[in-house]
This record gives sequence, C-alpha cells and structure tokens, in this order.
Amino acid sequence: MLEKRIIAILQDIVGKEYVSTEQADRICYSYDATQQQFNPDVVVRPADAEQISLILKMANAEKIPVYPRGAASGFTGGSVPIKGGIALVLTRLNRILRIDQDNLIAEVEPGVITATLQKAVEEVGLFYPPDPASLKFSTLGGNVAECAGGPRCVKYGVTKDYVLGMEVVTPQGDIIRTGGETMKGVVGYDLTKLMVGCEGTLGVITKIILKLIPKPEAKKTMLVMFDSIDGAAQAVSSIIRGKIIPTTLEFMDATALACVRQNADLDIPDAARAVLIIEVDGERELLERQAARIMDIASPLGVVHTRVAVSDEESEQIWQVRRSVSPSLRKVNPDKYNEDICVPRSKLPDMIRAIEAISKRLEIPIVNFGHAGDGNIHVNIMVNRAIEGHEEKAETAIRDIFAKTLELGGTMSGEHGVGTSKAPYIPMELDVATIAYMKAIKRALDPNNILNPGKIFLEDQ
Amino acid sequence: MLEKRIIAILQDIVGKEYVSTEQADRICYSYDATQQQFNPDVVVRPADAEQISLILKMANAEKIPVYPRGAASGFTGGSVPIKGGIALVLTRLNRILRIDQDNLIAEVEPGVITATLQKAVEEVGLFYPPDPASLKFSTLGGNVAECAGGPRCVKYGVTKDYVLGMEVVTPQGDIIRTGGETMKGVVGYDLTKLMVGCEGTLGVITKIILKLIPKPEAKKTMLVMFDSIDGAAQAVSSIIRGKIIPTTLEFMDATALACVRQNADLDIPDAARAVLIIEVDGERELLERQAARIMDIASPLGVVHTRVAVSDEESEQIWQVRRSVSPSLRKVNPDKYNEDICVPRSKLPDMIRAIEAISKRLEIPIVNFGHAGDGNIHVNIMVNRAIEGHEEKAETAIRDIFAKTLELGGTMSGEHGVGTSKAPYIPMELDVATIAYMKAIKRALDPNNILNPGKIFLEDQ
Repeated sequence: MLEKRIIAILQDIVGKEYVSTEQADRICYSYDATQQQFNPDVVVRPADAEQISLILKMANAEKIPVYPRGAASGFTGGSVPIKGGIALVLTRLNRILRIDQDNLIAEVEPGVITATLQKAVEEVGLFYPPDPASLKFSTLGGNVAECAGGPRCVKYGVTKDYVLGMEVVTPQGDIIRTGGETMKGVVGYDLTKLMVGCEGTLGVITKIILKLIPKPEAKKTMLVMFDSIDGAAQAVSSIIRGKIIPTTLEFMDATALACVRQNADLDIPDAARAVLIIEVDGERELLERQAARIMDIASPLGVVHTRVAVSDEESEQIWQVRRSVSPSLRKVNPDKYNEDICVPRSKLPDMIRAIEAISKRLEIPIVNFGHAGDGNIHVNIMVNRAIEGHEEKAETAIRDIFAKTLELGGTMSGEHGVGTSKAPYIPMELDVATIAYMKAIKRALDPNNILNPGKIFLEDQ
Repeated sequence: MLEKRIIAILQDIVGKEYVSTEQADRICYSYDATQQQFNPDVVVRPADAEQISLILKMANAEKIPVYPRGAASGFTGGSVPIKGGIALVLTRLNRILRIDQDNLIAEVEPGVITATLQKAVEEVGLFYPPDPASLKFSTLGGNVAECAGGPRCVKYGVTKDYVLGMEVVTPQGDIIRTGGETMKGVVGYDLTKLMVGCEGTLGVITKIILKLIPKPEAKKTMLVMFDSIDGAAQAVSSIIRGKIIPTTLEFMDATALACVRQNADLDIPDAARAVLIIEVDGERELLERQAARIMDIASPLGVVHTRVAVSDEESEQIWQVRRSVSPSLRKVNPDKYNEDICVPRSKLPDMIRAIEAISKRLEIPIVNFGHAGDGNIHVNIMVNRAIEGHEEKAETAIRDIFAKTLELGGTMSGEHGVGTSKAPYIPMELDVATIAYMKAIKRALDPNNILNPGKIFLEDQ
C-alpha cells in the first residue's frame, strides 16, 4: 500500500473526492475485458493535463507505477494495474472541445466515448470512420492508445490514420503537443504516430486532434451467406484481387453464426456455414453497381442466400448482431481467449484452414469472426478451465496459431495490442534487435519505468 | 580526410569500384537542391543491406559520420554531408522487388525512382498516389525519409499513409524489419512511422513495403483562373467547407503564372492573377457532377477563365507546367529560398495576405504556389545575394512568415522537412520538452550520433 503521505499529495492535486483507496473502488478499477485482475493501491480521477502532470512528477520522484485507463474495454490487459500503484482514470476528461467544419477536424478529450463523437460529427455531415465493436462504450483515448480498428478499416484505415495531433503528458510529467491541426507536417520526429498504439506506455493522452472526412452520401449493407467457410474466405481475397475495396468485409464462421441465431431475429438458413457482412458506401448512384460487381465475384463461391438491408435500421440490426458476437461467446464461455491475428489478405483461406486443423488436432473449439477484408481475424479459443488439460491445450493452440500467422507473413495483433496477454509471445514476431530498440525508446522517454510498467515487453526480454 | 585504413575497409565491404575519394566524385555528392555544399571524405555505393550494416558498424567503431542519399533532390539539406565522412549513395538499390496484385502492395528498394514505380503499378490497374513535384527523379527512399507530399495528397494523404513496413539498417548496424505486409498491425511501437520523415537520422532504409490502391477509373483536370489571389485562396477554403475533397487543389500566384507564361504554350489571359489546378478522379460518371459542384462554389469568387483538359495529354501538360514552376523560378533566381509552410486550410486566405504584407514591407519579392488544398504553400523568397542587405531581409521575411504560420496554427514544413535549413527555427515551433524527447529518441537509437549528424536539431538546442 502507498504511504498516507502519498495519498495526501494526490488529494492535494485532484481534490479529496477524486482519490479513493476504498476496497470496492480498487476492485472496480482492477480489470479490463481479459480475465486478469490486479488491484491498484489508489484510484485517482484527475480533471486535466495539469493535474496529470503533477501526478506523474510525483510518481517519478517516488517511483510509483501509474496506469492510465479510459473505459478499460481492452482485450489484452493494457490498462490493468499489474504492479499496483495508481489507477489514473481519465473519464472526467470527456469533452468534445470543438468540431471544426472549416478544416474538417475535431478536438476531443480522451474520455469521450467513440460513438458520441461519431454521432456529433455525423449531425453536421462529417464522418469519423474507426468503429471498434466496443464503440458504444470505449473511449477515444483508449482507441488511440491501442490504435483501434473496426469493420470500416478495410476502406478507411485505422485510428492512426485519423490522429493529426495530441496533447500528451510525458512519463516525466511534461505537457507537450505533438503534430497539429494541419493535414501535413514534417517538423521533427512523428511523436503523434509513436504515441498512437504505444498502449499508454509512452505518455498520457490529454487531448486529441482528429481528422474528419465528409460523410458518405449513402451505404448499402449486405449479409451474404456461404455454404462453406472456405467459400467466404475465398470471396474476400477474390474481391480484393478484383481491385474492389468495399467499406467492410466482415466474416463470421458457423459457430459465431449459431450464436447469432440464438440472439437475433435474423433468419439464417441452416445451409449457411459462414457469412460475410459486406457494406459499400459513397455516392448513391454508384452503390448498385458496386454491389453487383461484388456479388458477381462472390456468387460462384457457394452463396446460399443474400440479405440486403433496405433501411438504416436494418443495416444497424445487422451490425448489432456482429457487435454482439464477442460478448455472446463470452456468455457461453467466460474463459475464452480472444486473439486478433492479421495476415495478408490473400492468405486468409490458408489461415482459416490452418486454424480449423489446429482446432481438430487439439480437440478444442475455435470460433472465428472479424475483419476479413483486412486479413484480421478474431480467433476465439473456447477454453474451459473446468476441463482438465484444456488450458494447456489452449496455450498450445495460441502458439501454433501465432506460428502459422507469422509463417504467412502476418502479425499476432491487428488491433487489440499486446498488453500483458501477448507479451510472452513477442519474441516470436520481433527479433532481438527490434525489441532492444523499442525498449531503448521506452527508457529514453520513461527512465524510471513508471508509466504503465510491465506492458508489451516482458522485463527479461 | 579519412585514414587509408578506413578506405581499405570500405573497399573490402563494397568492392573497390564502389568507393571513391576522387575530388570530382566528392563534389558530385556534396549538395542537394539547396545552395549548401559540403564535400564528403569518401563516396560509397553499397549494393545491399548487409554491406550497409558492415559500413555502419565500422562507422560506429570509428566515429565517422555517414550521410545516406538517394537522388539528393531535397530542399532542406537533408542529405548534405555537413560533417564530411561517408556519402552513402543508395542508388544501386533500385529494384522493384514485387508488385502483389492479390494484396495490393509493392515491395521496393529505396533507390527506385517514384515515377518508375507509379508507371509499373498503373500498368496493372493499381495506383501509388504520393506525387512530389520531383517524382521523375527523386527516389522512394528519399520520399519516405522526408515523408514527401505532392498535389494529390489533398485526397490521398502523404507518403507516410502508404508505408506499411520497412527493412532498415539501424544506426548501430542491425538489420531490422518494421511493420509488415498486413493492413493492420499493433505489435510493439510503430517504428515504421517513426522512420518515415526522420530524414535519415534514425536508420538507413533498405526495403519499403508500400500500400497500393485500385487506380481511379478516370480523372478530370481543370485550370481555373481568378482575378485575384484572394479569390483563389477563398475558393480553396470554401470548397473544403463545402465538404468536397478533390484530388488536387493546387495554387499559383501571379508571379508563378508569369513564369508559366514564358515556359509553356498555355493561353493564360492577362486578367488572371492566380490559378487553381483542380483535379477530381474516380468513377467516370461522377466526375461531371463533382466538377460542377466545385465550379458552383468557385465561380462567384472572381473566376475569369476555366480550361478543362480533354485528354490525358492535356492534363499532363497542365501538371508539367506546375512541376516546372520551382526550377523555372530557380533559373531566374538561383539564390531563392523555398519554404513550405502549412496552415489549417481555412487560414489560407489570412496566410496569403500576411505573406503579401511581409513582401511589401521588406521590399523583397515573394512567389507563392503549391498545395493549397492542404494549406501547404511553397513560399519562394526571391533573395538576390548581389543586392546588399537582401539576404538579411530574406532572413527577416522567413522568420516573420514562420511566426505568422505558427500564430495561425500551422507548421514550418508540410513536406520538405527540416534538414539543416530549418533547424535554426525549430525552437519557434517545438517547445523545449518536445525537442528534448526527440533528441532522447535519437540518442537511444544512435548513441554515437554517426547517422546523418547535424540535421533537424542544432547541437545546442
């Protein structure tokens, strides 16, 4: 536990009502969407960058770990306070500071919920594309720290592609500004892009300048059902090879579909063994033609049924189904491991086949869904800790899946990050020199290793 | 001069014919597109990453500066060997390694000329958008090191947005791979984006994996002439405010136009005081409507004449004119300073008026052209060293222009970089803490400061 003296300093900085050492609060801020749980010593809810700066300066002087967090909806333990210390809760910084229609940018604080910003900008005809499945509860600060993705990234790119600048409190407590409001800028190193996806280890984000784009005039959402998982995977790579980039190319396998059948009113025929949610957007008059070109490519690959949303409500209904898959699977199986490997798009059929073989060999169910258009698959290993030997099997499955992913030129994580859960596997993907350079950067910015310590790299790597 | 022993080691590494200490060669590799000239001690032309690794390991052991260079077409001295040492010429690494139509990526060596890649990918229906004016002679390695821009960035973004991964030789001689072939990837820090725009100070790029997109079906190029510079600037911000993002919104003022009149067959009426080159691209059937919407916005702002290219040749003719402006101005005035400030797009009219006022007050001609759609203006200060006091005036003009740029929320450089020419001004834009963090990163990766030393940051900053 922290000394009373430290708690008093924290109370002085943020005010008594925003500091808690109560057991109940410490438990509330001890976990994320993984199964890990580590209590912080104290929960602190600062109001602004100045307070965060003071907290970090004190933490440096006293060598106290600080764990920033938004909604803590991450899948890799990125915000879990594994070494105790301070849980730095950023949800009070939750203002949309401005939406600048002249320059197509928004400036926000990190605690703004992603969907809240999207709604606000769409009301004035603008668009913020990144759409992680957690968008109705995850915060933009967390999205930026992890470089969140989502279905629309196929066409529009990931969170990184929309961050123009930031205000960041550095691990040593300096308040700096990176990037800016301009569409271009090459003065000095790109600290903005270094901060995006650094999983909160290099700075605490206190403001974000986001690039917006004009809202597409219309969209068309299709639920395309295939008689085999291979057909759906082939369709994805054939569409890309056909030089068509739809807005989304989202994939669900048979087990994910079974979940959907239980939880939604969508009529999905028994013959459907896999589906793609394909959306196109843009000028209204082009959508029909684009959709027809896509169906020309997909149809010979075993399409058993296609459902086209005829309204925004129907489209949202389809997406709601997709977003509910992960929570639904967790309801069935709370221990499941959720990996998010990413392979070159043409390697998707090979990867899916390899995962099926691993599942069969190890006799452990694996459910696949996710952003097939980017080659980014959420691989859900349905471990059941009640079954003896299951956990070891699941670990073997993860290692085999990562090995195959890397063999196919892929990466262990497309959008979830490394956090603590993938840290042991990092040396499979990155060579010793690369890890050494990344750790040198961390040491250069955070010499006392107080900001989000124990994440991404294991101490002995 | 370097000891004979060192030269012998270099000859052992790359072969005798690729090492030269001849005065003529040293002069050839002593300059870029600025007026600076510093001879290297030796010119070395390696064949591959392994040779570069050996060279950098030796340079570290012996504390010899190494200056990588492609075509040396940069505007800020980024490749000039200001501390002597080794000019590391990368033009032998000039192969397009593959164009992968299944995954829409290309893998290239750094010495490939930008236009060569563009032609190759367009032949198979793909597209590499970044188009710096130097594209017919600058190399992709240089484009990446500086994060080159170009007219099409308004719609398509800058070089950074197309770099998925790299092979890099680190300053200490390790050969590492950053990023990869996948569209997403969040394992570890984003070294790829840190390397893009680092101006060759953090690593020597030896391979680049580039994202490609489907080639737009058609384009429409318009030369729109205005009766005032203010009208053209207003048109740019009105088009963006109208939520239209054309492919290009390229700007030339009256003096740039005068240059064009001398050097091209284009018929430009005397009433034209500024022009915009506006291009739209995409599906053929939409171009007319897009162009009409743009002209509806621009017309009330003093359009005196519009010329629409009716063929690809006519379009290329218009672009050739644009690309010739900078060399033409240099022919008239070899001493000119070429800055490339960038402001939020809505601030463009304010910025142009401020530059005109500075020009008038200091009695020094300033010519403006460039990428108005991004707020990125090439400000050419027509200094004439033969006139007494002109150089001091030009320095004052630069400082005043930078101050106004920053006041408007802009940056000193949108795409040219800092190099040596903007280094003295860096503290105007970046605060002390930010510079300290950037220098800490440099020290972490290049502890002996041997790779491209003396660039971006002055020693005493």
